[in-house]
Amino acid sequence: MTAVNENFLKLKAGYLFPEIARRVNSFVESHPDAQVIKLGIGDVTEPLPQAVIKAMHAAVDEMGDRSKFRGYGPEQGYAFLRDKIAEHDFASRGVTISADEIFISDGSKCDTGNILDILGKDNHIAVLDPVYPVYVDTNVMAGHTGSADSEGRYQGLIYLPVTAENDFTPELPDEPVDVIYLCYPNNPTGVVATKETLTKWVEYAREHHALILFDAAYEAFITDPEIPHSIYEIEGAQEVAIEFRSFSKNAGFTGTRCAFTVVPKSLMVTTSTEKQVSLHQLWNRRQSTKFNGVSYIVQRGAEAVYSPEGQEQSKALIAFYLDNARLLREGLEAVGISVYGGVNAPYVWLKTPQAFTSWDFFDELLNKAHLVGTPGSGFGASGEGYFRLSAFNSRENIEEAVKRFQKIVS
Amino acid sequence: MTAVNENFLKLKAGYLFPEIARRVNSFVESHPDAQVIKLGIGDVTEPLPQAVIKAMHAAVDEMGDRSKFRGYGPEQGYAFLRDKIAEHDFASRGVTISADEIFISDGSKCDTGNILDILGKDNHIAVLDPVYPVYVDTNVMAGHTGSADSEGRYQGLIYLPVTAENDFTPELPDEPVDVIYLCYPNNPTGVVATKETLTKWVEYAREHHALILFDAAYEAFITDPEIPHSIYEIEGAQEVAIEFRSFSKNAGFTGTRCAFTVVPKSLMVTTSTEKQVSLHQLWNRRQSTKFNGVSYIVQRGAEAVYSPEGQEQSKALIAFYLDNARLLREGLEAVGISVYGGVNAPYVWLKTPQAFTSWDFFDELLNKAHLVGTPGSGFGASGEGYFRLSAFNSRENIEEAVKRFQKIVS
Repeated sequence: MTAVNENFLKLKAGYLFPEIARRVNSFVESHPDAQVIKLGIGDVTEPLPQAVIKAMHAAVDEMGDRSKFRGYGPEQGYAFLRDKIAEHDFASRGVTISADEIFISDGSKCDTGNILDILGKDNHIAVLDPVYPVYVDTNVMAGHTGSADSEGRYQGLIYLPVTAENDFTPELPDEPVDVIYLCYPNNPTGVVATKETLTKWVEYAREHHALILFDAAYEAFITDPEIPHSIYEIEGAQEVAIEFRSFSKNAGFTGTRCAFTVVPKSLMVTTSTEKQVSLHQLWNRRQSTKFNGVSYIVQRGAEAVYSPEGQEQSKALIAFYLDNARLLREGLEAVGISVYGGVNAPYVWLKTPQAFTSWDFFDELLNKAHLVGTPGSGFGASGEGYFRLSAFNSRENIEEAVKRFQKIVS
Repeated sequence: MTAVNENFLKLKAGYLFPEIARRVNSFVESHPDAQVIKLGIGDVTEPLPQAVIKAMHAAVDEMGDRSKFRGYGPEQGYAFLRDKIAEHDFASRGVTISADEIFISDGSKCDTGNILDILGKDNHIAVLDPVYPVYVDTNVMAGHTGSADSEGRYQGLIYLPVTAENDFTPELPDEPVDVIYLCYPNNPTGVVATKETLTKWVEYAREHHALILFDAAYEAFITDPEIPHSIYEIEGAQEVAIEFRSFSKNAGFTGTRCAFTVVPKSLMVTTSTEKQVSLHQLWNRRQSTKFNGVSYIVQRGAEAVYSPEGQEQSKALIAFYLDNARLLREGLEAVGISVYGGVNAPYVWLKTPQAFTSWDFFDELLNKAHLVGTPGSGFGASGEGYFRLSAFNSRENIEEAVKRFQKIVS
């Protein structure tokens, strides 16, 4: 008789964003004329940079020409893209990452989930709370947790609360931790980590032989020159950290699909039989066996992000969304809402007014203002009473959203 | 201290194809003038159908136009593609599969590996021998096996030998099996399964509450009208089988990346607490959490495979490769080689001459004829003494390969 992975049965309800989609669809069905503005899921709205469009057209033409056609590419990605990343994202910031430490993939969501394939079953795993749900759900699926309590906290995971009270910067864990997920600029709170904060984590990881899974999907939004873009800007991080990056938000690739993961070769782990094992080798084996590389066309598009035109155009995109974030911040603050993030990140994190719970405020905003945001509690128990708005939208919609928001809370 | 997944350490050497690439690269480095013809990895050589090129250009343009731009798509794939698949691949053959039972993905290799995420740890798992290595390696990684013996057979897996002696059609297992991988048209042997053979398996699975993982990546190569293209052509299969399909070989998508997996809603499994669980729901949850959908551009390309022009052009591609397979078959038979497959499949499976082992014959062919094939033993212990040639190449190269092959074996 076939056995299923019963860990799936521990998962609470649907994954957050499908649940939001369900409520929105149901509202739209019963209010077909409502002009709903979506600031929920962090999905971009502006078209791809023209440099990317041009490069993808050229790649499509190659795929139609026998002499230039490409079949299976390297599972790890093409050198033309890995080289550009090593140079632009790392060498330019004084960080030495070699091209073959970079694995091109079709998404950071996939990679942050799949990375568990190479880790053992008995790690003590820490996450911030609130947190991007994928880190938690994939650990539940992998059997690394017990059941969830009534607030959604899974037994066995170590939650590090981040709230206004601790300035959204967690204390170091006071119990042993083997794997720690960090995301900066943070999703959902929009806060960043200083060099000092990251140094503390790297030192902790080195001391405790722990692994940092560093999600830097939003690094392009960092405007403050003092804030590190990569954890590898911290001395010694290459021995303790894997970093996840994405083209989704910096160049609008959410529907085009390209990301990458850095696994330094100096990242070694000791096995139960005292053998030294390279995580780079394990991830390479995992990717060679369970992945077949990213579409050639898409990789050429990602490469074009690094061209002079691509850089200029993607920086303009980022500046546009950051201006949206500023308008949201200022508009909400003007009516007395406590707002966090939104400076070095495309997310604005706010305290719900009038003691609304996160989901009640979601329904209130949807029903009365036809605005969609993301309930803070969907990101974890400590997100209760908070709410996330995304700056990914047209200027017109952002301005209209601010007006509607101000109207219902004042 | 971070624990790694030590099951990875049980894996024998590299994954087959990287090992072949390594030997070929090393040969080419020392023989820079050799005109090597590659009939190893099953990678297409002809450009994408023009209908696909046209559709992808249009999709790229949409991604550059704000009013048509697409961000995150449904993790399960766009309805425009799922509907076409349901109609053309299933309804047209009298099989009722609904569009929402079809999950679009970036590759069958990924799906056949990832499917283990939703299955339990204690299944008795059967594979044919020889077999596509991904089925085995992903089970090793997931901890479903012990170590490998000297012939590469992993403890705990049930191997069903397929050789010339049993006409490459395995007996039903004589020990309990909960999960069975079947691939037809078969990789690597190129043989197909009749309706009777598949019916026997479906009946076995129904009787033993087992799950069939049916890999139909090569179905487009079936020329015999009596051979089923889908396992769902067998009555009752929707209650016991998951089917994997790909655009890689029928439309040349190996470097473009699109595939799909069918998980019927009637596929239910009983848990240890006697609950009925739907594998469709589990897979949907897995994909929503760990995957973000296939590039919009690529999905539009795949959709175009089903247009009248796309159908005509992809059928011409298939016919071209099948003609290559015929030339290989006939050319090898003419010098007394025993050849199997290559009629309803793009692979020709041959008995190595002069009692060569598979890897010795690989080196012989590479060194003396500058031909690359795949050693049968790379697919499993029972593949020893066999060798696979792929029909994916230009006509000129196939004709030249036949000549060179004939020269060294006669």
